[in-house]
Amino acid sequence: MTPEARLAALGLTLPEPPRPHGDYQPVAVHGGIALVSGQLSREGDGVVRGPVGPATAPETLARAGRACTLRALSALRHELGGLHAVERVLHLRGFVNAEPAFEEHSRVLDTVSRLLHDVFGERGRHARTAVGVSSLPSRGLLEIELTLAVARRKARPACAGDSG
Amino acid sequence: MTPEARLAALGLTLPEPPRPHGDYQPVAVHGGIALVSGQLSREGDGVVRGPVGPATAPETLARAGRACTLRALSALRHELGGLHAVERVLHLRGFVNAEPAFEEHSRVLDTVSRLLHDVFGERGRHARTAVGVSSLPSRGLLEIELTLAVARRKARPACAGDSG
Amino acid sequence: MTPEARLAALGLTLPEPPRPHGDYQPVAVHGGIALVSGQLSREGDGVVRGPVGPATAPETLARAGRACTLRALSALRHELGGLHAVERVLHLRGFVNAEPAFEEHSRVLDTVSRLLHDVFGERGRHARTAVGVSSLPSRGLLEIELTLAVARRKARPACAGDSG
Repeated sequence: MTPEARLAALGLTLPEPPRPHGDYQPVAVHGGIALVSGQLSREGDGVVRGPVGPATAPETLARAGRACTLRALSALRHELGGLHAVERVLHLRGFVNAEPAFEEHSRVLDTVSRLLHDVFGERGRHARTAVGVSSLPSRGLLEIELTLAVARRKARPACAGDSG
Repeated sequence: MTPEARLAALGLTLPEPPRPHGDYQPVAVHGGIALVSGQLSREGDGVVRGPVGPATAPETLARAGRACTLRALSALRHELGGLHAVERVLHLRGFVNAEPAFEEHSRVLDTVSRLLHDVFGERGRHARTAVGVSSLPSRGLLEIELTLAVARRKARPACAGDSG
Repeated sequence: MTPEARLAALGLTLPEPPRPHGDYQPVAVHGGIALVSGQLSREGDGVVRGPVGPATAPETLARAGRACTLRALSALRHELGGLHAVERVLHLRGFVNAEPAFEEHSRVLDTVSRLLHDVFGERGRHARTAVGVSSLPSRGLLEIELTLAVARRKARPACAGDSG
């Protein structure tokens, strides 16, 4: 099953590729590594604004995680021409807009991690860093950043004899 | 035009290479990738201390962005022997020391992104992550971190036959 | 002297490899680069909870730095089969759970940087980014993230003729 077929089986649809809210690119690819710009949960996602606190409903946190992940995957698909080009998710960095008393950052990021596993299988396993921040652009609730290994492009071989 | 000539045409001068305020290096280079340590705006840059809020003047934010960028470029030039060795800016990570109500992190980072474009042209296009933080060393207003692709050094080839 | 022998000479013992508090891996290795998941100081380390402020005792900060570093090294040793596989520490990212008035983030990270130098010698020299955050998982005091160059695995050569 392709990642796109797995998404469909989960009943999930990728949004339009995100347009950067500033002078940067959604994804930079170099030497078989893709760096995805920070992706925010937004009010249009049915997600409340940050900060979150101990009383924030788990479903609100899960919605934010799904929204960020789908936005990152849409940016990747647009850049790579399809999610089959993803060889491995390497690292997930998550910034949770949270009150000082909040402790459940890992729970927020687990929604993202599980969805990456669901979509990419074993290739979705990754290292992770979760921290809390005091503000995010547009008062977003969550921002995530992904580093992935991707198929090297023919036009820009890094090594003679490298077929990766 | 070289990056240095573009800087001169913009009327900008690089400061002295930054000396780390701790036991680390300004830049680490490995396998054609340069990682630039977090560069802070400081009071000596004519920049107020953080945090910033909705009422902070745009020119103050722009000054902080320019100061951090020039410091990062100075560190790179010193490490690489010249900015011509930069093949591509890959990622910009920006930490804005901001009050919880601040929402304009992207605007702060746009000063950095545009200056990178001005100096490196198409090679300056990058992915980006902007978050807000509640404190920075020396109460700085902004801290940025850069990841770049750079010319590989002859002394440390990563692959036989790789001329990159 | 091996890194493990240097640790022993310092009177330090690595803890058990950390078990992730969520659906992620402690370390991801790809193309000769190891990314270590964010490692937290915890109450069991004899470390108080965050946030830290100007009055926090230096020894408390040092204990947090040591605890995070030893946990990261334990994760690496477990993943790589030994710390001799570390060719170079490239980057240290440190998130200090701090009050807005705190300014000594560099001092907190210096404990980590010096220990990496002590254990890896010249190979321990690295770039660094230190920021302050308003919350961390489990109210930790410090979270660190490491990027390292490591010996490439035989089973997954990135380039024909690459013996690295």
